[in-house]
Amino acid sequence: MSRPVALISLESPHPFWRLSAEQERALRAAFPGVDFRTASEEDVPFRLAEAHVYLGWRFKPSWLTHAPHLNWIASPAAGTDHLPVAEAHSAGVALTRSYGFHGRPMAEHAMGLVLGFSRGLFMSQRVQRNRTWWKDDLAAEFFDLAGSTMTIVGCGSIGGHLADAARAFGMDVIGVRRTPPAAAGNGITWMHASAIRQALAVADVVVDLLPASRATDHLFDHDLLSACKPGALFLNLGRATTVDQQALLAALNSGHLRGAALDVSDPKPLPARHPLRLHPRVVLTPKSSTLCRTYMNEAIEFFAANLHRYLAGQPLDGLAEVPDVHSPLAGG
Amino acid sequence: MSRPVALISLESPHPFWRLSAEQERALRAAFPGVDFRTASEEDVPFRLAEAHVYLGWRFKPSWLTHAPHLNWIASPAAGTDHLPVAEAHSAGVALTRSYGFHGRPMAEHAMGLVLGFSRGLFMSQRVQRNRTWWKDDLAAEFFDLAGSTMTIVGCGSIGGHLADAARAFGMDVIGVRRTPPAAAGNGITWMHASAIRQALAVADVVVDLLPASRATDHLFDHDLLSACKPGALFLNLGRATTVDQQALLAALNSGHLRGAALDVSDPKPLPARHPLRLHPRVVLTPKSSTLCRTYMNEAIEFFAANLHRYLAGQPLDGLAEVPDVHSPLAGG
Repeated sequence: MSRPVALISLESPHPFWRLSAEQERALRAAFPGVDFRTASEEDVPFRLAEAHVYLGWRFKPSWLTHAPHLNWIASPAAGTDHLPVAEAHSAGVALTRSYGFHGRPMAEHAMGLVLGFSRGLFMSQRVQRNRTWWKDDLAAEFFDLAGSTMTIVGCGSIGGHLADAARAFGMDVIGVRRTPPAAAGNGITWMHASAIRQALAVADVVVDLLPASRATDHLFDHDLLSACKPGALFLNLGRATTVDQQALLAALNSGHLRGAALDVSDPKPLPARHPLRLHPRVVLTPKSSTLCRTYMNEAIEFFAANLHRYLAGQPLDGLAEVPDVHSPLAGG
Repeated sequence: MSRPVALISLESPHPFWRLSAEQERALRAAFPGVDFRTASEEDVPFRLAEAHVYLGWRFKPSWLTHAPHLNWIASPAAGTDHLPVAEAHSAGVALTRSYGFHGRPMAEHAMGLVLGFSRGLFMSQRVQRNRTWWKDDLAAEFFDLAGSTMTIVGCGSIGGHLADAARAFGMDVIGVRRTPPAAAGNGITWMHASAIRQALAVADVVVDLLPASRATDHLFDHDLLSACKPGALFLNLGRATTVDQQALLAALNSGHLRGAALDVSDPKPLPARHPLRLHPRVVLTPKSSTLCRTYMNEAIEFFAANLHRYLAGQPLDGLAEVPDVHSPLAGG
């Protein structure tokens, strides 16, 4: 039997999203039985003919027709909504996402957004060129993290990292999941997805980490945003589809919400004159919550562990859920 | 002997800097042997005649001439440079600052400033109205807190709180002090003030928590800022006098420093067109790092503990150092 062929296409304008020569050497050394090949994205369809395994940021549905021997599509990304999950499933090709290492940068990002509001830093940055002193405004607006409550909706492994960071500042953390862990004791108060309104009613900070699915589509609508505690801060680092943006705008304009920070939007990016872009109490980031200079080290480590499983005929880690079969309110 | 008289003047436009009725009741209940009196600031000079103890935000040097029985001036503030320390010393009046509870809000403030730069949040907030997408700029600029180094100059009790928060994000922390603790093991690498250049050379983030003194005056001059690691972020949450602002501006303009966040400035506030105010990589906050809604609870607790000592004839806690006798490079 010939050696399995693994085709790798990891292009990016940024070094930390590319495969370094060192990482490639390490992979070849760790798996002498695998024939690793690399390809630019435009060459991928022509190089898939012999590939059993594919590792890359993107995979177009049409590429499946060029890949008669393909068993497995591995993505270094956490989300799979940009990948042909259903088509791969139908073609009998496994598709895996990567997880377990996005939590650290996302926790930094989320805490930066929370503290930017709680300490009045965004307000300060906005007015420092137009006003000389605004301490009284800050004194009216700021809030203490210590003793306040963060509710994480879709609290999986990323939420766990965020919870650790929030608790380091003395926050109480509520985690909302479809399937809350049976064991307590890690500092998170777990609540089932069915109790989301109670979890939102006590939250000074709400963090949406939900994946996209039929069940989460526009979950944060006018009704659910109204269930939030008055003055709450709302963060979406999950998927844009989970929020009704018009309802969010209304909740901001009415003053029901203190502010919002959005790492995701629909469409991406928002139009130039979109009211959420111009809103004084909205901070937008360009899907940058997972930026991490050690990203590819960790993604390759995850891939290598899975490649060992693949070669041993064991089940792969991070298999994508086929859309709309389940109703995920989990996050990960 | 008549009951000691304690005069309290704690005025502020903000409730958390005033003495609440409940706090006043609690003080009276805890010290039945003390005659508590309260006064507006403009009435203080007329009410000091019988006072043995004064608790208040401000104390004008001229007031000492109205206070023949005064033994002790207690301030709820951390700093004493706005108080007549030398004059009180000459008059034989003790003067105490408050400490031990500013660390929590200042740690939140400092970490918010650090994360605002490290995650590109300030940049995002600034450009979101003028540009639709700027992920490539963030990808070039951001840095990971995990594995980076924070050097805290003047690392006292406030620095200890900040170090805890920084270590929660995986940062290495170096604490610079005049008198480093003998014992290690709390996660801070201690360095003596004489080794400040080595401590700055390895720091991705420099936090200045120094008090004002002759020894710290313009300590961060062109020479010391040049000793910082290229690309470092500089925060001043200590005293404005510790930084040569022209040298700081030059270090920002040359690109040697990534950015600066200043909670203090000279003058306070900076003039409307001051280049630090207009600089795209400077974030100013209006001396807001100690904003804390539970401030007066903790300040009164500190005062009450000291009042017990006063009544028992024991040494007071938080006695102000008489300026220019020592060379403090400590912070508190």
